[in-house]
Amino acid sequence: MENIKHIKTSSNYRIEVGDLLQSSLGEYLGNKYKSSKKIIIVDKNTQEKCLPYLLENFSDLHDAEIIVLPVGEENKIIEICYHVWDALTSYQIQRKDIILNLGGGVVTDMGGFIASVYKRGIDFINIPTTLLSIIDASVGGKTGVNLGLHKNQLGVFSVPELTVCDPTFLATLEMKEILSGRAEMAKHGLIADAALFQDMLNENEEIPSLALIERAITIKTEIVDKDFKEEGERKKLNFGHTIGHAIEGFLLGEDIEITHGECVAWGMLVEAHLSTDFAGLSDEELKTIEGFVRSEYLDLPVNKIDFKELLDLMQHDKKNQTEKINFTLLKQIGKAQINYELDKTAVLVALEKVF
Amino acid sequence: MENIKHIKTSSNYRIEVGDLLQSSLGEYLGNKYKSSKKIIIVDKNTQEKCLPYLLENFSDLHDAEIIVLPVGEENKIIEICYHVWDALTSYQIQRKDIILNLGGGVVTDMGGFIASVYKRGIDFINIPTTLLSIIDASVGGKTGVNLGLHKNQLGVFSVPELTVCDPTFLATLEMKEILSGRAEMAKHGLIADAALFQDMLNENEEIPSLALIERAITIKTEIVDKDFKEEGERKKLNFGHTIGHAIEGFLLGEDIEITHGECVAWGMLVEAHLSTDFAGLSDEELKTIEGFVRSEYLDLPVNKIDFKELLDLMQHDKKNQTEKINFTLLKQIGKAQINYELDKTAVLVALEKVF
Repeated sequence: MENIKHIKTSSNYRIEVGDLLQSSLGEYLGNKYKSSKKIIIVDKNTQEKCLPYLLENFSDLHDAEIIVLPVGEENKIIEICYHVWDALTSYQIQRKDIILNLGGGVVTDMGGFIASVYKRGIDFINIPTTLLSIIDASVGGKTGVNLGLHKNQLGVFSVPELTVCDPTFLATLEMKEILSGRAEMAKHGLIADAALFQDMLNENEEIPSLALIERAITIKTEIVDKDFKEEGERKKLNFGHTIGHAIEGFLLGEDIEITHGECVAWGMLVEAHLSTDFAGLSDEELKTIEGFVRSEYLDLPVNKIDFKELLDLMQHDKKNQTEKINFTLLKQIGKAQINYELDKTAVLVALEKVF
Repeated sequence: MENIKHIKTSSNYRIEVGDLLQSSLGEYLGNKYKSSKKIIIVDKNTQEKCLPYLLENFSDLHDAEIIVLPVGEENKIIEICYHVWDALTSYQIQRKDIILNLGGGVVTDMGGFIASVYKRGIDFINIPTTLLSIIDASVGGKTGVNLGLHKNQLGVFSVPELTVCDPTFLATLEMKEILSGRAEMAKHGLIADAALFQDMLNENEEIPSLALIERAITIKTEIVDKDFKEEGERKKLNFGHTIGHAIEGFLLGEDIEITHGECVAWGMLVEAHLSTDFAGLSDEELKTIEGFVRSEYLDLPVNKIDFKELLDLMQHDKKNQTEKINFTLLKQIGKAQINYELDKTAVLVALEKVF
């Protein structure tokens, strides 16, 4: 059996799934970036749990400079980038040098943004270490940081030269991180592949099999390839995120620690209710989705009193083009449709059904 | 006679030179951006001298939000962008909205960067109001801000939907601003069109004729079209800038107010000496360049004691790929050649000849 699989993309960047040691990473470091200075961006967690493995196995990284980010979504902000840009300047990093982002979504989103803006863009390689970043954050060329409570308000579209998704790293994760990634995997099934969603529910382990991971990544790359700049098709990936981002921003403001995937899971449930109300999703399929969310995820500390603030955050969301709120909804499990423009009242009704 | 000229570019963005009122601006605002919120970014100077003209003549801008930047290169920094991003968020600016940058290079560089990073990029239109920004900053898709003393250390490549260069605004400028722009115009002649350089010197007015402005812009767009990401040909535009940027950063650190063009003019003179030493520029042509710089520009407060700091700044410059310093030099007037890698000693010798 092959231990590395190359996911085809229409662009000239590579996504590989499998054993890091058999991936193209060694070749990139030893040839294309042989004479480049290397920077590795990690957070406190991956510095401890993943970096030693990388340094032991790739001698080309022995002289790399290590930059350690503080852990957590609340630190995915421009002020942190500023310190990293200062560090890159002091290391005299030039355009031909290379940044490796080793970590979850915060590290790959922020590290990609840092690289893409420094000197108008230097190359970067993503090595995602969480299920969420393997399936979602590290694929598709979105980089960014938050502005206040507004998720990914600042960023650019920019693709890594290489992404290696090695599920070995998943063994280092806490269960809440696995559940966070499962939410995005479920989403990929719900919007485009009913069988993927069902197969995921049928597996015995919380950590999905390599085969399912590959299918989830492939769905994302296929959608992104059709619409890199999110002008149409790609909005399908926003299912669950209009509500989910608002919840995430709101809880961030309350200093409540929560994973992205948890927020997306509950966002999907609210939007599944909207799908039944406005897009023809059957009651039976709604129940399947409700069963998945309520069995895997703990209740969120969101109450009726918070709904107004959630709606305000939604109206700031990138996806909204008018005073109404833009949603991607499900016509059925496995089939999403974009650009439902709903008014606040409809959203309130769905929020009340869930929280 | 036509009052507006469309400069052809290989990309799908428009550059127009001539009367703003006859340009495509009205059509863009009234059609493509009819339902978009409009933001106008100005600085204190253009708020006073240029904005009234714009508002009087374009009724579609009556509801525009105005954002006023502080004047000057020392304010071309990420901290200012941060405040603007906050303002855009509070105005609920969405992806389909439009930013107009009305001002000199600081406004167009920083405004372009602000637009390109906000929500991963919203459209912007540049209306440059200085000779420098008409000829140089507003054409070519470079956006950016400074990081400490490092010029344009942060930025992205991103092109405006439309650029209108209306020389009417040049009447609002102080002479030092005109001289700043003349340095970049001279550079375009020196690297690619000996006749342009000579014709500029032959004109009686300091403000160049519309015909010369068009030629200078065309040179830049032709070079940029060949090499948008500055991997080769485009480096020709860096003539004078390796030294010039270092001087500019150094004087910024000393709180000495100086225009970009002044620094570039003296940078060109130092690099013309290097060109004679290393690239075959004749002594006679060197004298012509020396005559232009010394007659148009006041001496700079740069002394031998400052040379070490200048060299340090050069080694941080984006154009440098090694410990040596990368230069674009002239083989003759009108013909530039990229990628001379010189060591510090050679640069010191040239600095001593000039300062």
